[in-house]
Order: sequence, then structure tokens, then C-alpha cells
Amino acid sequence: MAKGPKNAISPTREENYPEWYQQVITAADLAEDSDVRGCMVIKPWGFAIWENIQRRLDAMFKATGHENAYFPLFIPMSFLEKEAEHVEGFAKECAVVTHHKLVPNGEGGLMPDPKSKLEEPLIVRPTSETIIGATFARWVQSYRDLPILINQWANVVRWELRTRKFLRTTEFLWQEGHTVHATREQAEDETRLMLDVYAAFAEQHMAMPVIKGEKTAGERFPGAVATYSIEAMMQDRKALQAGTSHFLGQNFAKAQEIMFQNEEGERQHAWTTSWGVSTRLVGGLIMTHSDDDGLVLPPKLAPAHVVILPMFRNDEERDMVMDYVSNLKSQLEAQLYDREPIRVRVDSRDLRGGEKKWQWVKKGVPIRIEVGPRDIAQGGFKPARRDQSGPPPKDPISAEAFVGKAASILEEIQQGLFDRAVKRRDDATVEISDLKEFEKFFAEKSPAGLAYAYFTDGPEMESRCKALKITPRCVPLDDDAGPGKCLFSGAETDRRAVFARSY
Amino acid sequence: MAKGPKNAISPTREENYPEWYQQVITAADLAEDSDVRGCMVIKPWGFAIWENIQRRLDAMFKATGHENAYFPLFIPMSFLEKEAEHVEGFAKECAVVTHHKLVPNGEGGLMPDPKSKLEEPLIVRPTSETIIGATFARWVQSYRDLPILINQWANVVRWELRTRKFLRTTEFLWQEGHTVHATREQAEDETRLMLDVYAAFAEQHMAMPVIKGEKTAGERFPGAVATYSIEAMMQDRKALQAGTSHFLGQNFAKAQEIMFQNEEGERQHAWTTSWGVSTRLVGGLIMTHSDDDGLVLPPKLAPAHVVILPMFRNDEERDMVMDYVSNLKSQLEAQLYDREPIRVRVDSRDLRGGEKKWQWVKKGVPIRIEVGPRDIAQGGFKPARRDQSGPPPKDPISAEAFVGKAASILEEIQQGLFDRAVKRRDDATVEISDLKEFEKFFAEKSPAGLAYAYFTDGPEMESRCKALKITPRCVPLDDDAGPGKCLFSGAETDRRAVFARSY
Ligand SMILES: [Zn+2]
Ligand SMILES: [Zn+2]
Repeated sequence: MAKGPKNAISPTREENYPEWYQQVITAADLAEDSDVRGCMVIKPWGFAIWENIQRRLDAMFKATGHENAYFPLFIPMSFLEKEAEHVEGFAKECAVVTHHKLVPNGEGGLMPDPKSKLEEPLIVRPTSETIIGATFARWVQSYRDLPILINQWANVVRWELRTRKFLRTTEFLWQEGHTVHATREQAEDETRLMLDVYAAFAEQHMAMPVIKGEKTAGERFPGAVATYSIEAMMQDRKALQAGTSHFLGQNFAKAQEIMFQNEEGERQHAWTTSWGVSTRLVGGLIMTHSDDDGLVLPPKLAPAHVVILPMFRNDEERDMVMDYVSNLKSQLEAQLYDREPIRVRVDSRDLRGGEKKWQWVKKGVPIRIEVGPRDIAQGGFKPARRDQSGPPPKDPISAEAFVGKAASILEEIQQGLFDRAVKRRDDATVEISDLKEFEKFFAEKSPAGLAYAYFTDGPEMESRCKALKITPRCVPLDDDAGPGKCLFSGAETDRRAVFARSY
Repeated sequence: MAKGPKNAISPTREENYPEWYQQVITAADLAEDSDVRGCMVIKPWGFAIWENIQRRLDAMFKATGHENAYFPLFIPMSFLEKEAEHVEGFAKECAVVTHHKLVPNGEGGLMPDPKSKLEEPLIVRPTSETIIGATFARWVQSYRDLPILINQWANVVRWELRTRKFLRTTEFLWQEGHTVHATREQAEDETRLMLDVYAAFAEQHMAMPVIKGEKTAGERFPGAVATYSIEAMMQDRKALQAGTSHFLGQNFAKAQEIMFQNEEGERQHAWTTSWGVSTRLVGGLIMTHSDDDGLVLPPKLAPAHVVILPMFRNDEERDMVMDYVSNLKSQLEAQLYDREPIRVRVDSRDLRGGEKKWQWVKKGVPIRIEVGPRDIAQGGFKPARRDQSGPPPKDPISAEAFVGKAASILEEIQQGLFDRAVKRRDDATVEISDLKEFEKFFAEKSPAGLAYAYFTDGPEMESRCKALKITPRCVPLDDDAGPGKCLFSGAETDRRAVFARSY
């Protein structure tokens, strides 16, 4: 595709995918670098997408019996000592609070007050297993207290060397579910239930197809018995881990003494789970749907479904057009899409029409309506769909007719984006049973994609993957391929993994 | 009132108000101490109240044109150096991050890695004026970029020596609005608009009457030209500052170089505001309405409006009662109260009826329905209102009749709680024009209350107040008392303040 004025985003996806990603974010005004290394400012349009994600997920969590709560931002250092099975090999990149006061440094500046040094440093939570576990140990006494089904929406901090907006930032926003159960089976069911919730959300709301699967031993969350994830494929054919759900067995319950008396009066360690998704989802949404003109939003998560751009050249035209537009707006807002009123913005800023139009293209609004006196005189307008390129429809549509089918157009866009993403992924997916072929598929210059291959867990597989700069993403749960031969060792196995480069 | 089994909370308000407050929180399961000094765990019932507060306020902010965004948790120390007008006298209690890595300490524990020491310490935000101001300086170029109307929901940290749940904790949750305007008038209008939003929310949703007013010079936010607040009176007759709105003039814009080109092409400093409320509102809600049996919730913010306690002694009764109850529940949920479906909980836990009932009394649910086979046979039940003490009504009401008037009962409770709080406040409010009388009113042993008195700003007034352990809470905006004589100096003045002890 030719570069230049034809595309709003430069470089294009083909020219330089990572740079295209950054430019889409800037062009859509989603986020920007802050004055703090590795932390971003999430701007209103980006935050509104996150709010929509939050609202939908929160309703799904509550519908499955979970309640929200809030735990401290800080974790005493000793809690991490308990968690680190072998403290010797432990090194954790995290923000360490050591003082609680600033005082003048005698040179016109400030410094941490040496007298305010904390006896025990506090860690800004990188995740809350330890502090929530210590709390649960107090809450749980008897089987009657179980299950405990808690979720927290929070900010967390992981000191990252290389950051990329939404995908990996030092501070990020997320939710973390933490649950406690009386039996292994109930905890396993919970782990899989939340994986299903994440997959349903990704596919139905984000229009992002995902593979549900179990992580291999090397990719498990430290301390988990089993880690499950949903894996999506971005347009550069790299995989993105979009959510994880961990079955923690009794490991954390033992470290944190979460014990309960069962119906027979015996004290037992409980079974726990944890699960989370983060602002990384916004990165996945951008990379799944956007094109060389900028962001493309799935309607269900779009801050605005329809943007109306009134066109006029004088006050008389203005009055007439604005009447028409505000009428159109309120009629649209009386319609429901996905059980919520259709979200409409009217942009009547004093800007050139072309500039205004391109701003909304780059912001990814699903439907764009430019309407001026001539359109009104001719009985309608020509709505432009963000998911379709090329010229708008030849024939105008009346406001009445458009209002009547707006919700179904939005649903068509939502479904179309999903279908397109499924096709893109399936076109980039192969099944490989030969190591040479596998190595060729992942050769440096290749755009590669997702490769299904039989494997057995272990160092042989891991070193081969490392050399190819890929990882086993997961062992898909829906795979019914039966037994086969391990690609790396030739041994009989009944497990296939999806291998890919990844974010 | 006699102590003992008659009240669910011990001590009573009269016996020991501060301890009663803590016991109400524990009995209602709102929050508990955490493993981190000064930080609390907000438990599901407490957090659900905060979520209701958030949802309502957020809608009010959006209806007045504000958008949400998110800024970094950390603030570079140098930003606070700029803010501190005279660094020499500056001392700030805050959490200081100095390292970014933990490593083994050689003794089986962990320590901050000396090699990971930050060149510049980072402060966990105590408020975000500086970091948001630096961002706004980049966003604002021209008058066309104004106004900027941003809100952030966030956690903040202020190192507190003495903490009290919800009222004063080291970490707390809040929202902070930050806006930029082209003219003084627009910024002043915004400051007052948000004060009005807070007052409307406090009175209409929390059922907590407030006085809107301007802070005296000594009580202003550092750097503000004018600080406005809403002040409520708790049942111990102390005042609680429940929200503040600051007109910052050009002070912050000058410190942070927030400048714009006006329509004439001249570069000017902008005018800014900030405003906030926090989880402290939950403390105010508790102390305004609760009684010696525990929490009393205003229906608009109650996580559940109605709790149904099914009573049965065998499986046959169980089936019959549960059918009736689930039918009642779904009929109630089809009714709207305050534009939302009525929120119903059914508690069918295997617990003694009395214990269960008292749990919900202490949790403050507005309407409680116990229903068993005999009630059903007699054609109804006797709903108990949390705002009324004494025995339940003599005559049962049918499910049909109750469903039909549930919303109006809730509204009656909401209004009743407000009226009661207004009366309590007005009964404890005096107008005083004599210093002796003023000193007597605030004498140590007196329960005191709110005193309106004429004043002039300055050290005379401040030292008298300090001696009485009171502060001028605000200069009420709605006061039309005209001019008078300063209580402290005798000078002519047209300003009256409300004086009180406070949280
Ligand atoms: Zn143990
Ligand atoms: Zn300046």
C-alpha cells in the first residue's frame, strides 16, 4: 500500500508495526508519556475505553457472585520474604518506600528526612496475593465462611526497564480476583469459570478472538499449581496474553495459614485462586482492530457509537442544521444497543471539515455522519462506517430510517470486526509436526504466526523455543487432536501447545 | 438509656462516641485494620457503599461536562520543591520511594538493593496538583483548548500519626477534579458549581445536611485564592468537612507555566481549580445516621434496600417459603427506586433467626422482611423499618401491596433521615454575639454544636479559637444576616462564620 497522504497514520503497519502502534495511540489521543519514567497519562478517550471495559467486566464478576473490596497499596517487605520460597535467588523489581517525610536539604531543595526512615520498608504492591492472603487468614475460620469471592480494582507497580503504552508500564491499572474455597474441586471450577468469563468478554465485547489454555510449567505464575490464560493474536502475528486465571492449590494457604474447620470439625488448609486482567487489554484492542488510518473501536466498548459533524457556512444554515442534528441525536439516544442507550457525540467545533473528520476517523468511532443544508434538503445523509474503507454509500438515508437501523449496523460492525480478526488469526495458524518446518516457520524474517505442535514439558523444548525467540503460549483446552509425537524429543504425548512470538 | 442487651452496639453514643463509631464499623463489617500501619481494608459492605457514592458522583461530574483520566501514582520530588513556596519551612509527611529493587540481604531476608537507589526520590501522591499541572501545561496552547475539565478517581497517601477508619487513614480513596479556564470568572463559576454538586449529593443522596461556605484565610488550601467547603454536623455535635472546592487563581498556572494564547494572540496564564471528596464521606454517613443498634443507611446509597429472611423448620416449609420469597424478590426488583431497580438480598443461611436479624440491623439495611409459613398463610408479612425503633406494625401487609409501595417507603425513609439530621443540627446551632457566652458554649464539658458569630480574619480570632479547641468551619454562603460587630475585636464586619469543634 502506498505511503503518504492516503493514510492518516505514518508509518503503516507494514512499514513499522511497533511505531505504527505508538502513532495510533497518539493520533487517537489515548495516552501520553508522563513526567515519571515508565508511567503514562491515560487521557480521556483512552480512559473512557477502560471505563467501558471495567463496567462490563465488573457486571460479569458480580453476576458470578463476586464482591469488590479494597486492600492497602503497601505491602510490608517481610510479606515478600515469606512468599519467596528461596530468598537467595529472589530479586524483585518494585517500588520500595523507605521514608515517610520530606524536609529541606539545606541547599534550597528537599530530601527524605533521615529521622523518618521506616523500620521495615514498604513495597508498592506488584500484586496483592500476600496482603490479601494475610487478611483472608483472619476472615476464614469455618467452612461456613467459604467460599470467599473477592475482586479488587487497583493500581499496581512493577519496575519495568522497557515500557510500551498500555502493554507494559511501570504503574498499570487492573483487577485482581482472589478467592478461597473448601475443596480442590471448587477452586478448580472457579479458576476455569473466570477463564471463561475473560474469554467471553474478549470475544463478545472486545471482538478479539482468544485461545483458552493452560500454561506450560515454565510459564506458570510462581506458586501456582496451574495457570490458565487467554491468548490473542495481534496483526503482526505476535501473541498477546490478555488475561490469566491461577489455581493456587493449597500453596498460598499454607504460606499464609488460611485454615478452616470443616463440617467434621477438622482444621484444614483452604484452596485458593487468583485471576486478573489489566489496561493491557486496551493495547490488545488497539492492535487487533486498528488500521493505517488509526484506531478502530468495537462498538460495544466505544466511548461514542456515532459522531455527528454538522456543516454550515452562516448563522442561518447553522440554526437549521443544529436543529436537525439535535433532533437526530436525541432520537438515536432513545435507541438501545447492547442494552444501553446509543452513545452520540456532536462535534460543532469551529474547525475545517476535513480536519474534524480525520480526527474522528483516527479516534475510531464506529459511525460518522457529516450533515449540511444540502443533505437535509435531499432528505438524508450518508453515514460512513469506520470498519469500511472506500467512498461512503451513493444514496443518502433519511434520519428516520437510520435511527431505525442504527443498533443493527453497530451489531454488524461488532460482528464484522470479530470475524475479520478470526480470519486473520486462522490464516496465520499452522499445525506442524516436523522440527525443521517449525524452525523455518519461526525464522527471523518470517512474519510467522501461531503454530500448533505436540510437545513434552522440559529443558529440550524450552531451549529450542528460546533459540527461536518464541514461547509455548498455552495448551489449548478445546484441542481434540488426540495423541502424537513430541516435536522436540519424538516421545509419545497427548499434549499440543500453541507456539508464537509474543508481547 | 439503659446499657446492655437492649442495644446491639456497646458502648452507646452517649457513653463513648468515638468508641461507638469504631464498634458500628466492626458490627456492620465495613472495614478493618490492615497489616500496614494506618491503612485499612475496606470490606465488601463498606466498599459497596463507596461504589454507590462513586457511581452517583461520577454521573453528576459527567453531567456537568467533566471527563475522567488517570495520572501517575508517583510525583518526582523536584515537583514538590517547586510547589513549596519557601522550601525552608517545608516538611511533608508522605511516602517516599527511594529504591526500585529488592535483593537478598545475606541473612535469609530481603533488603532494598543499594544499586537500585533512584537518582531522584519519588513521592506517592498526597494530591496530584503538581503532576496534573505539569501535564496541563503541555495540553494547553490556545484558548481553543479551554476549558479543560478533568476528574480522577484515585488512591492517595498522607502519612498520618493518628488514624481513624474512613475519617483519616494513611492511604485513602478519593476523586480529585482539576480544571483550567481562560478567565477568572469561568474558574470561579466552576469552583462554585462543584461546591453545589457536592452539596446536592450530600443532601439528596447521603441525606446529610451541609453548610456551603468559604474557608477563612487560616483554613485555606495552600496556594488557593479561595477554598470553599461543605460542612456537616455529626451526632456528637462536631463538624465534619465533607468536601472542598478550591479557586486557585493563577497561582498554580504560574508555578507550572500553564499558559495559553488568547483570541487576540497574547500569551496569558490560565486560571485553575481543584475539588475533591474522599472515603471520608463514608465516615460522615455513618456518624450522621447510625444509632445504638448500629449502621443506618440512607436508601439511595444502601447496597441493599430490602433484605428478606425466610424462616422454615423443614424441607416442605423451605420449598414453600423459598418459592414465595423468590417471587417477592423478583417483583421488588422490577420496581424502580431513584431510577434504579430496587436492590434485594435474600439471606437463607443456616443461622438462628435472631442472630441473622441482628446482623442486618447492624448493617443498616432500610427494610427487613422476616417471612415464614404462618405469615404466608395469614396473607402477608410485617416489614421492619431500620429508621424506626419499637415493635413492627401490628397488621401484616400482602406481598402485592408491599411491592406497590416499596419505592415510596424507601423515599419516606430517605427524607425522614434527612429531616432528622436537619433537626439535630438546627437544635445544636446557636447565634452568639458575646465572647463570654461563646466561651461558655464551647467550654470543655459542653456537648457544644455550631455557633454563628461575626468575625474579622486575623491572629486575635485564631488564638481565641485555638484556646477553645475550635475552628471557624466556614463563612456560609447563604447567610443574609447583614453587618455586625466582630466577636473578638468589636470591629464592624459583614462576615459571619460557623465555629465548631471538628474532625
Ligand atoms: Zn499451615
Ligand atoms: Zn509564567
